[in-house]
Formats: sequence, structure tokens, C-alpha cells
Amino acid sequence: MPEKKYHRLLLTGAAGALGSELRPLVPDYAEKIRLNDRDPVKDCQSHEEFIAADLGDMEAMCALTKDVDAVVHMGGQSREGAWADVLNSNIVGMYNLYEGCRKNGVKRVIWASSVHTIGFYPRTEIVNPQSPTRPDSNYGVSKVYGEAVAQYYWDKYGIESVSVRIYSCFPEPLDRRQLTTWLSYNDLRHLIGQCLWAPSVRHTIIYGVSNNPAVLIDNRLAAHIGFHPQDTSEIYRAKVESNSPEPDPKSDVLGRHGGQFTVDQHFDD
Amino acid sequence: MPEKKYHRLLLTGAAGALGSELRPLVPDYAEKIRLNDRDPVKDCQSHEEFIAADLGDMEAMCALTKDVDAVVHMGGQSREGAWADVLNSNIVGMYNLYEGCRKNGVKRVIWASSVHTIGFYPRTEIVNPQSPTRPDSNYGVSKVYGEAVAQYYWDKYGIESVSVRIYSCFPEPLDRRQLTTWLSYNDLRHLIGQCLWAPSVRHTIIYGVSNNPAVLIDNRLAAHIGFHPQDTSEIYRAKVESNSPEPDPKSDVLGRHGGQFTVDQHFDD
Amino acid sequence: MPEKKYHRLLLTGAAGALGSELRPLVPDYAEKIRLNDRDPVKDCQSHEEFIAADLGDMEAMCALTKDVDAVVHMGGQSREGAWADVLNSNIVGMYNLYEGCRKNGVKRVIWASSVHTIGFYPRTEIVNPQSPTRPDSNYGVSKVYGEAVAQYYWDKYGIESVSVRIYSCFPEPLDRRQLTTWLSYNDLRHLIGQCLWAPSVRHTIIYGVSNNPAVLIDNRLAAHIGFHPQDTSEIYRAKVESNSPEPDPKSDVLGRHGGQFTVDQHFDD
Amino acid sequence: MPEKKYHRLLLTGAAGALGSELRPLVPDYAEKIRLNDRDPVKDCQSHEEFIAADLGDMEAMCALTKDVDAVVHMGGQSREGAWADVLNSNIVGMYNLYEGCRKNGVKRVIWASSVHTIGFYPRTEIVNPQSPTRPDSNYGVSKVYGEAVAQYYWDKYGIESVSVRIYSCFPEPLDRRQLTTWLSYNDLRHLIGQCLWAPSVRHTIIYGVSNNPAVLIDNRLAAHIGFHPQDTSEIYRAKVESNSPEPDPKSDVLGRHGGQFTVDQHFDD
Amino acid sequence: MPEKKYHRLLLTGAAGALGSELRPLVPDYAEKIRLNDRDPVKDCQSHEEFIAADLGDMEAMCALTKDVDAVVHMGGQSREGAWADVLNSNIVGMYNLYEGCRKNGVKRVIWASSVHTIGFYPRTEIVNPQSPTRPDSNYGVSKVYGEAVAQYYWDKYGIESVSVRIYSCFPEPLDRRQLTTWLSYNDLRHLIGQCLWAPSVRHTIIYGVSNNPAVLIDNRLAAHIGFHPQDTSEIYRAKVESNSPEPDPKSDVLGRHGGQFTVDQHFDD
Amino acid sequence: MPEKKYHRLLLTGAAGALGSELRPLVPDYAEKIRLNDRDPVKDCQSHEEFIAADLGDMEAMCALTKDVDAVVHMGGQSREGAWADVLNSNIVGMYNLYEGCRKNGVKRVIWASSVHTIGFYPRTEIVNPQSPTRPDSNYGVSKVYGEAVAQYYWDKYGIESVSVRIYSCFPEPLDRRQLTTWLSYNDLRHLIGQCLWAPSVRHTIIYGVSNNPAVLIDNRLAAHIGFHPQDTSEIYRAKVESNSPEPDPKSDVLGRHGGQFTVDQHFDD
Repeated sequence: MPEKKYHRLLLTGAAGALGSELRPLVPDYAEKIRLNDRDPVKDCQSHEEFIAADLGDMEAMCALTKDVDAVVHMGGQSREGAWADVLNSNIVGMYNLYEGCRKNGVKRVIWASSVHTIGFYPRTEIVNPQSPTRPDSNYGVSKVYGEAVAQYYWDKYGIESVSVRIYSCFPEPLDRRQLTTWLSYNDLRHLIGQCLWAPSVRHTIIYGVSNNPAVLIDNRLAAHIGFHPQDTSEIYRAKVESNSPEPDPKSDVLGRHGGQFTVDQHFDD
Repeated sequence: MPEKKYHRLLLTGAAGALGSELRPLVPDYAEKIRLNDRDPVKDCQSHEEFIAADLGDMEAMCALTKDVDAVVHMGGQSREGAWADVLNSNIVGMYNLYEGCRKNGVKRVIWASSVHTIGFYPRTEIVNPQSPTRPDSNYGVSKVYGEAVAQYYWDKYGIESVSVRIYSCFPEPLDRRQLTTWLSYNDLRHLIGQCLWAPSVRHTIIYGVSNNPAVLIDNRLAAHIGFHPQDTSEIYRAKVESNSPEPDPKSDVLGRHGGQFTVDQHFDD
Repeated sequence: MPEKKYHRLLLTGAAGALGSELRPLVPDYAEKIRLNDRDPVKDCQSHEEFIAADLGDMEAMCALTKDVDAVVHMGGQSREGAWADVLNSNIVGMYNLYEGCRKNGVKRVIWASSVHTIGFYPRTEIVNPQSPTRPDSNYGVSKVYGEAVAQYYWDKYGIESVSVRIYSCFPEPLDRRQLTTWLSYNDLRHLIGQCLWAPSVRHTIIYGVSNNPAVLIDNRLAAHIGFHPQDTSEIYRAKVESNSPEPDPKSDVLGRHGGQFTVDQHFDD
Repeated sequence: MPEKKYHRLLLTGAAGALGSELRPLVPDYAEKIRLNDRDPVKDCQSHEEFIAADLGDMEAMCALTKDVDAVVHMGGQSREGAWADVLNSNIVGMYNLYEGCRKNGVKRVIWASSVHTIGFYPRTEIVNPQSPTRPDSNYGVSKVYGEAVAQYYWDKYGIESVSVRIYSCFPEPLDRRQLTTWLSYNDLRHLIGQCLWAPSVRHTIIYGVSNNPAVLIDNRLAAHIGFHPQDTSEIYRAKVESNSPEPDPKSDVLGRHGGQFTVDQHFDD
Repeated sequence: MPEKKYHRLLLTGAAGALGSELRPLVPDYAEKIRLNDRDPVKDCQSHEEFIAADLGDMEAMCALTKDVDAVVHMGGQSREGAWADVLNSNIVGMYNLYEGCRKNGVKRVIWASSVHTIGFYPRTEIVNPQSPTRPDSNYGVSKVYGEAVAQYYWDKYGIESVSVRIYSCFPEPLDRRQLTTWLSYNDLRHLIGQCLWAPSVRHTIIYGVSNNPAVLIDNRLAAHIGFHPQDTSEIYRAKVESNSPEPDPKSDVLGRHGGQFTVDQHFDD
Repeated sequence: MPEKKYHRLLLTGAAGALGSELRPLVPDYAEKIRLNDRDPVKDCQSHEEFIAADLGDMEAMCALTKDVDAVVHMGGQSREGAWADVLNSNIVGMYNLYEGCRKNGVKRVIWASSVHTIGFYPRTEIVNPQSPTRPDSNYGVSKVYGEAVAQYYWDKYGIESVSVRIYSCFPEPLDRRQLTTWLSYNDLRHLIGQCLWAPSVRHTIIYGVSNNPAVLIDNRLAAHIGFHPQDTSEIYRAKVESNSPEPDPKSDVLGRHGGQFTVDQHFDD
């Protein structure tokens, strides 16, 4: 059996939907797993330990990242929210996490960025990892901040990162837009696995989306990760179209990458 | 069953080879189909109506596009011909068709542009939908005109279009060049279906060619259409090579995208 | 004194504003000048001859281009107009002119294309000669047709062309948009002179605009022409701003390359 | 005299070095000027009013931007500093400023971004406004955040912005690196003037650097601003080289755009 | 049975590993095969003849290429070596081979260039056939020389070439880097077959690598060759990882395309 | 007076035309100058020493580069010649020179590459430093080899280089092609001076051509050198055109960057 790549790996957001999906995967890459969430995580195995901590708490973040080789960071605010929450979790929290990593010598961080960093691109424009950002929400802006942090800690401190711009990660596509933007749980696991496996990543940005009928992204600049999605929303097309009405063709809900986020009112209004 | 996307769809060139292939497909997307050709179309079904009209007749074109949501335009001059014919069908005719669409509020036009818009590119140069045009015939020039009309009516009047640059659409590849340029009827139907399905297309240019051993086009700029050809000329390779001699390697017949068109004499000479 | 480059040069539109500006220039490059317009031209010099002819008349075009080495084609419909006029002058006329050139062995054509081939680009987007066309009028579409003809006759018949996309060529800038789009008569003459001088042009597209405070075009792909505009609208800035009100900042009149053309109603309505 | 473009303009950082340079310029573009700083501003003229306010105070920012058409935002933390200061002035402060603009209907914001958004590029790599960001400090990361805010408020709320990535703006170049990165006060004033004048800017990123012997940036994507620097550090070359020793050629102080910032230790350590 | 494309084909390096793999393939494309190596080749068939010759011997190279239509050149120095050997086989030898081809009217040369022409690119950067070269050894520099020769003889003398930048061609991947860089013998044969088949190649550069989990190259500019690798190193992943230790993540052995070559000492030291 | 940048600088080809022009310049950058040529150099000053040596002699090259900080390498074969000469001077010689530099710790090499590395590009195509090479002669191929050596010694051994692709460097333009390709002696000196001055160059390729009426190159990728040519062939236009006949417009002598080289017969025939 090959030696595991990392000794100890930290998984944040471990009680959330994506964290739960990834929890069985990460032991392939590390001998010991540290789980983190604000909420407690159930059924810790022998190779797992749980530590509760808030991203906004610098001291807690430094403790959390101690003796860790790599981080899979699924925690933080995962949709548009009040500015105070976005600020605390995704801006202050991101800074705290990377400061912890810097002080503790963590080698690699893989974290959940978002389609909402580029949500204002029209559907007819294919984005790549170097497309200028066009965030569609304060949430999206906070993810642009996070990617800049990741780039900075690579250039200045040599910490490698993969910023995974996840599209719509659900058990199955929920509406017509997700026929294009869906990322299956299967493909998410494969993608995170490859991010952990890749010999060298520097700071890589990669889109997370399945092999759907129409794919609006071009991941070639991240080809070194070796992400080859296997699932497709095609098999759900009839079901989804029966359940959700054909939307107004002029609406940005279908017309832009970010969907509903591009038309929602300001959250704090 | 999902609601159909369009109420009434117009199919021009309905008596021709490509029109006949598409006739059974379009009812998946619209409740009623209007068929058009200069020649009569046989065996109209209950959801079909037939109207004869010449593209060069503005009044007829306005009548033809009345109460229509979308057009699949396979009519017009489909190869090099006398200048008078090219002018009437593909220039005046294209203007008339879009004027009809503008006056009648048609939302989307999908139409047969051609490889001959870029026929002078050498085989060793891969073209994409934004490659500068290099037409190889008056016919090819008329298709460049048509694409400019499609772009203009999108920018000015909000009519969406897909200009499908069809390569060699036949039941099977006819000669060595078509081993590269062949588009199967199957893949044509899939392509036109996706053009009808796509939520937003603005004005999109896309190449229509099957998944052949060597493919000289790059459709990534049209990835939002979701065209994934399934057929390949590979299975006809031995047959075609047995039947057609190895041509002069210096001839443009094999050496340029447009094949024979690039070397033919001027039609009206 | 150096031998002149061409024996006989044809100048069309010789009675118009631009033709009149160029008339004293062209003798630097050819020994004999043939002038053409629908209207008569005054004061023919000994090296000049005048022939009236309509672009829509194929036979006349063949006669006009006989014994000619090069053409400076400033004739045709020079703004949006009735479809019948645009069709006759800029589409049928362009075809006739190049057929004449082909039959008579003309070597080079320099002609007035237009900003209106790309008029729908927003002011904040810099265009180059390979930017996909976005015409803003039937007039603009007819110029896209003309450029396709020029490309075709180069690739197929070896006739060189320069398509000069003239912006706003007037004695001085007339309104706020022209502070950006103005081409001085001086710079026009220099530009056409360089097009005649350049040893090899194949089919070159080049933008004609002076060295204004803000320049929205990038002519590097045509650097072999050697066009270095010397004039600037800057010296008219105060005068123009005093005379014309600050327009609605959201209007496309200032916001797009094509200005007023992008918002005008359809001409034939 | 031409009507002024704006009724009331807000200048932040009005007591700082750059703010003081711009204070005599902005009245060319607006009838009334509101000055802001944390420190008081001296000698208010009749067209000026002064309001003290801290960027971190949302309520104050909303009051400050009331009845304002355009903002020239030179305030905020202008170099690397303690995380708490960077966070308060450049992240929370930027959010507050744009929220104020959104609520008060401000049309355009011109603000001081920084070379430190791309500071880690080697000197041998020329950056343009779409080069992926490579911040060299927490300060630089905060400016990437600010640019994402500017892009977001354009896409979502239609507020235009120019993010001016200022290099080294001083009375004269201070060291060998500034022979390349210097922006003269003269050129700064010209640049900000053009940002105020330009008819349409959407969200534009532009580099602010003079016409020095070697220029490491390519502003063509911002050509619509019409920035033509007139000054050059060349005239200071001998003086600077006499006063500052030839640095270690392998050091990033000369070798990267961001200079000293790329090698400084973490500020809070 | 289709007529064979070439009458006589020369295979150099016929006694080597790659030459031996290709020997059974080439008869599909030519009636007669001439085998060449410094060492004798065994078991010549009736359609084969063997001629020994050294690449450094101009006269021998002219004799070797006599009455030949096409060459598959697998000979030469195939790894870093003493400068005298690299010079003789890959520089003088390449010149001699193409001079022979020129004098004898050979139409097409397919030859083994190498990943080591671009070996210094980091693994996170995807290369295409037009990426500027970054050789990692004197061997790699000699292959850049060879590609320049191939381009020159196409432009000047009309001899077509395919420069195949082979990665790691072995029966199975030997170490962790080869999980990414492996080219199976199967895929090599398919690739060379397509190079022989393609109707027109001018001078094409193409990468030879299998369909591995992560692929660091982009062959789209060579799509006209029609190379579709079928094998993947994935099936060897567990075996390779068990047998070879996880390397130092900062080492260029895994971090750059050229692997070990980028860190080896100078051969002649 | 500023400290000089280098202690000892080696100038090769010091007895040639370009070497003679540069000899008075290099003392601005170094305290001591070593001159080299096969032929003796006259009138050595106190800061100069002369050493004769042949590039093909490795031992001599190692001696020549001892105690040297920087090299300006104008020696070698400077036009198409017999293969044996090109091989000895530009291939073996280049290898020897860089081996000497490696062994003696030389920091920077500036050397005369050539337009003939890209001579086959048509005049209508603008080249930049990353355009794929298209040599027009064995001489041009040898310069591609030299540039690969320069890149390799930077990537592997950290020796910086500037490869200066000199066009036509003469006292004044000699024929019509040189109206476009002329590099004045003045501009050559300025260019080499900037190459010596630039703080960091890694391996930079830059074109050497004056500010002529038409310029076929784009040096932006080398903007960090700060080369701003001041001279123009324009002032010689009338003289040159009077003295040299208008050439055949279809000839590559004017139609390609490399001019006469692209049409000359093989030197050794």
C-alpha cells in the first residue's frame, strides 16, 4: 500500500453537506483527519478528531491548523448573506485561516471558492481560470478576496492552494439552470481527490462542474489537476423540464453564470 | 410532459435534403410547424402546414414569418451558383427573412451558414467562430453577408440567431476530404436540437462537423450550445480510400477547408 | 525623380468630399488618373480623364477598370439609406467593381469601408482589424459584405486590397463623439498614400482615425501600412464641448463606436 | 464656457499628498467640491466644503456621499499596515463607500488602487488590466477586494468606476526602481482628469505610470480613457543612480513590479 | 485494397526501442521499407532492406535518402550525452538528413523531437506547439535546432515535416512523473500512423503523450493530425505509487515537464 | 558619478562594423573592456585590452571569458555562408562561449541574433518575441540554436541574456526593403546600452529596428528593456526610391521579413 501523502489533514465545514461528502474520501490521502465546524460532527472514527472553532477567531484558527499538512476548507458562509456574516466568515475568516497555515507550516490548502466570483458573465461566454472576475454578490466579492489571499500566500510564503470554483453541488439538478451548472457529489469527490494528489499546484483556480450537455467553462489552464468529470445532468433533463417552467428568455436567471444571484436585491436592504 | 418551447416554428428548405432530415425533429420543440420551400412538400401531418414562397419576395417573407416564434432556415442557394441566384436567395433573401422576423416578433433564427465562409484556411489551421472570414466563392461571400445580418439583428433588434457553419452533410462521406469534413445526419439533428434548446444564444456561430479522425475546428466559443457529435467518418475510411485516389498533395482540394471550391473557376465565366 | 508606382489609377467618388481631398494626392503615385462619379467632376487636368458610371452597372464597371493598375474607391452609398440604394451601390456595386478588376488585371484596390462594420462595440472595448464584426446598420452590413469580397478576390484571384474603416472624416470634429472618432483630411491623405506605397498588402483592414485624446482602435495588425496620424481633435475640445450639450451618459450615442447609427430607427420604416 | 460635467464631486483623502495635488483640478469638472479626510483640510474655497468622516463608519459614509454625482477616492490606507487598519479602511471602508454611493445614486467613482495588486509579477513581464492579480501584501490583497467591489457595483447597480493602479507617485523618483515606476504629479492630474472626462467607463482598470525609459505596463485595454503621460524619469536617471547603489541583481526589490513589498516581512509579526 | 500512400519509406533508428515498435506499422503506408541504424537490424522481410549509416556522414545520408518518399526518423542521440555526441547525431546529423531529403526529393519527414525542448516549463503550465521553447539540456537544445531545420526546409524547399515531441515512451510508466508523461507504444504507433496519413502537414509540431489522468499539453494546434490517444497511466497508478516514494514536493523532478533533466548536472563536467 | 555597473566587459567582433560602433559605448557601463576578434583591433585605450580567439576553440573561449561580468557578443558568422563556417562560428562557437560564461561566472550576455530567425514571415504579419521561429537560411537556423542556448543557460544556470534580433544595421538604408528594416547605428547603441542598464532581463528576445515609416515588429514583450528608437528611414525615402527600381510586387524580396535570404539558392550548391 502506498504511503499516504499527508500525515494530518484538516477538513473544515465537516458538518455541512459538502464536508459530509468529502469526509470518507480524505483518509485516502492522510493518516489522521481533523474535523472542524461550528456545529459538532457525529460519529468520529479512530483516525478522526473534532475541534469546534469559529473562522472569525484568529487564535482558534492558529490552534486548529497546528500540526496539519493540508487543509480542505469547505467552511465559511456558502451563499449570499448579511454583510456582517460574509465579512466575518469569508474575509476575516480567510485571513485567519491562512495566517494559521503560515505560522504552522501547512503545505497545501484546497478550498471552496465559487461560480459567484464570475457570476455576471453571460451564459454565452465561456470562462477560464484567468477570466477577469465579475462577482454577482457580496458573497462573490468575498470569494474574490479569498482567491487573492491564496495567490498572495503562494507568492510570498510558498503555501500551495487550489481555489475550486464550485458551481451547483447537489444530489441532483434542481432547476433548468442547473442542467448546465450541476456538479455531482461523485465528481466533487474526484475533483478534491485530484487536488490532493497533484504533485505541484502552486495557486491553481479550477471550475467544479460535471460533464453536462452544455458546459460554460474551460478548465485547460488547470489541466495539471487531472479533473475528468464523469456525471451528466442529461439524465435529469426531462424530469427537470417537466417540473420547472420555461423561464423568461430575457431573464438573467438563465442568461448568466450566476443565475438568481445576479438579479436578487441587496441582502441587507 | 414538458411544455414545448415554441408555439409555432418555421422550417424553410423543407423539401431539401437537410430540411427533410430535420422535419421529424422540430416537433419536439414546437406545437405547430410551418413548412416552406419553392417546391411543394409531401404528406403534411396535422401539426404541419405548407406555404410556398420565394426568398427574394419581401411580401411573401413577411407573410411567411407571421405568428412564428422561431425559424430553422435551411432554404436558399446551397452551393456556388450564378451571381443572380446567389444574390436573390442568399443576400436579398436573407434581408427579407430577417425583416419579416423583425416585423413579426420572431425570437430566434437558426440557419445554415457554411464552411465556405472560411474555406481558404489551410487544413493545418484550426478555425474557431471568431476566426476572420476567408470565403472561397461568391456563395461563401453571401454567407458572410448572412452572418453579418444575424449579428446586426441581434445587436439592434434583439432577435437571437445561431449561424451553423455546416461542413459536408451527407448520408456518408463521399471522398477523402470528407473523411475530415463530414457531418452525419444524426449529428445535424442533434446540433439543431441543441440550438433550439439552449436557453440563451444571442448570435452564436458554430461549426457543424462530426467527430471525425481529424477535426479542423474548435467550437469552444459555442460551448453553451452543447453540441457533442457522436458519429465519425473513421468507419468509412477504408471504403473511401479504396474508391478515391490519393490526390496531388499540393492541391488545395485536400489542403484547404473549402476543398474544391477554392480551385473552381468563376461560376459565371 | 522616382518612377511612379502605377501607370493609371482610378479614383471613384471623385466628386464627393473625400474624393476631392484625395484628387491632388493620387498623382504622386500614378502618371494618369481616371476620375469617376455619377456627377461630373470639374476642372480636369491634363493627367486626368473623367468617366461617369453607376456602380450598379456591370458593363460600365468593366469599362471603367480597363487599363487601370490600382483603384481608390471612395464611391458608393456613404451612410445608412434605403435598402434599394445600399443594395445597388454597396453590394451589387462592390461585386461589379471587383469583377471589373478581375477581368482587367487590376493589382490593388483601396476602398472606404467604415466604422459601422463594428459600430455596436461599446466605447470601452478597443477593436482591432480582426475583431468580429458588429455592424450597426444595413449600411454597415453592406460594408462587411464588401470586406468579404476584398478578402475573396485576394485569396482566389490575387488582387490586393486595403479596406479602410474610416471613422468620422470631416474638416473638424462636429460633436462630442467625434472628439474620439475624428479623422482629419490630412491624416486621410497620409493614410491613403501609405496604402498606395506599401510594397505588399494582401488584404489588409485598417482603421482611419486621427491621434485624438482617446483612441478606441488598435491598428497593430496593419502596422505594415505605416499609418501615423498627426492630427488631434484635442485642439477642438473646448469649442465642441461649448457647442454641444453633455449627452445622457447611458445613451449609446456616446457609448458605442457607431454612435447615432446604433440607435436610429430602421431607415425604411 | 462648457457646462460642467458634474454638479457636486466628493474628494476623499483631501488632506493627503495625492488629494492635495488633485484639489485644484477637480473644479474643472464640477461646480461644487466636497472634501473629506480624517484630518481637517485647510483653506476651504467658496466652491468647497469639508466633512470629516472615517471610512469604517457606514453611517458617515452614507452622509458623505449624499447629493454627490462623482467621487475621487484617494482616502484609505495607502501602504502595508496592521491588518486591523487595512481591514477597516480598505475593506470595510470600500464596502461602506460603495453602499453610500448606491443609496445616494452616485454615478461614477474614480479611486486609487495600486501596483501592489500585481506586485509579484517579475519586471520582465508586462501587465495589462486583465492580467490575473498577484498581490504582494495584505494591502495589495485589500486593493484586489476593492476592484472586485467596483466591478460588482457596475454589473449589479450601474455605478461606473475607474480603478487606477497607481505605481510610485512622488515629486520625483526616489530610487532605482522608481526610474521605472514613477508617476509624476502632472501625469496623475492628467490621468484623473481624463477619468472624469471620459464619456463612458463602465468599470475600467488602468495603470498610472509616467512615460519612463522602461514601462512595464500595457494600458491598451483602457485606451478609451485617453491617458497620455508626458513626463519621464529619464531626466532624473543620473541623479538617482549617483545616490542609490546598484542593488543585488537577484533581489526582487528591482526584479518585481511591487519592489520592496515583495520581500518585506509580514507586518504584524 | 487502397493504394499505399508512399512507394518507399525510410525508418531510421530501426534497431532501437521505438524503431522496433514502428517497424510493423510502416508497411501499411508504403510498399517498400528501408531500415537504417548504426547497428544491424535482424530478420529483414521481403519488403524491407537494411542500410547501415552514421548520421554524421553527409555522403551516407544522401545515399540513404535516395529513392525515398517519406522518412520516419527515430535515430539520433535520444537522451542527454556528451556534447560531441549530441553535436554529431542531432545537429550535424539533422542537417545531413534534410540535405539528403532536399537533394533526393523526399516529400515528408516525421521525426522524434522531445519534451526536452520545453522541459523547463513548470508542471502547472500547459504547453502548446507554439509555446516558446525552454530546453532543459544540451540534448533539448539540439532538438530545438532540429525543429528549426524542419521549419526551414518546409518554408524554403517545400519538404513537409512533423516534429513529434515525445514525452516518456515505455512499455509502462516507470515512476510518479511518468503517470503524467507516459506515452504507450500503442499510442505512439497510432500517432505516427496519423502523421503518415494526414493529407497535408506543412511543418507541424505535436506532443506525444497518452490520455493520462493529468495531461500537461494542448495539441489543438495540431488537430489536423487526428491524434486521439487511447491509453492511460491510471491503471498503473497504484503500482507506481507503491514502488516509488512521494518525492520532495519542491523538487523540479516532479515540478517541471522535463523532470530529472532539469536538475541534472552538466553532462561533460 | 555613479558607480559603473560591471567591472569587466567583453566585446566580441570588436573589429567588425557593429563592434566598432559599440566600442565607444560600453565604457559607460564597465571599468575595463576586453576586446576580441579574429582580426586585431587597433588603437587600444588604457581601459581596453585585446585578445584574439576563434569561437570554435573551446579552450580559448574559456580563457576569453575569465574575470568577465558581462559580454556583448557581436562576433560570429553574420550572414549566410558555407555550412562549415556557420557550424563552427554560430553553433559550436555559441556553445563554447556559454560554456566559458558558465565556468567563469559571467552574469549577462547580450548578443546579435537576427531577423533571419523569423525571415519567412510575410511583411503583412507583425512578429513579436514569442512568434514561432521561421528561419530563412542555415544562418537563421544557427541563430535559433543560439537563442535556445541562451534560454537554456538562463533556466539551468542563471546566466541572463538578451538576444537582439537585428534587422538591417547600416549607416543608411541601402534599398527599398531597408526603408522598413533599417536600424541606425545610433539606435543600435541606445539599444545595447539599455540591455546593459536594465536591472533584470532573464532571457529576453528583442527586435532591433528604427522608428521607420512602417515597422513590422512588436517589441512590447521586451518593454522592460526600454528601447525607444529615435531615427527613421523616412528621410532617405526619396533617395532610396530614386536609386532602386520598384521590384516585382510578387517577389519575396520585399514581401517577407527576411528579404533576399528567402529566395537565395542554397549556399553550398
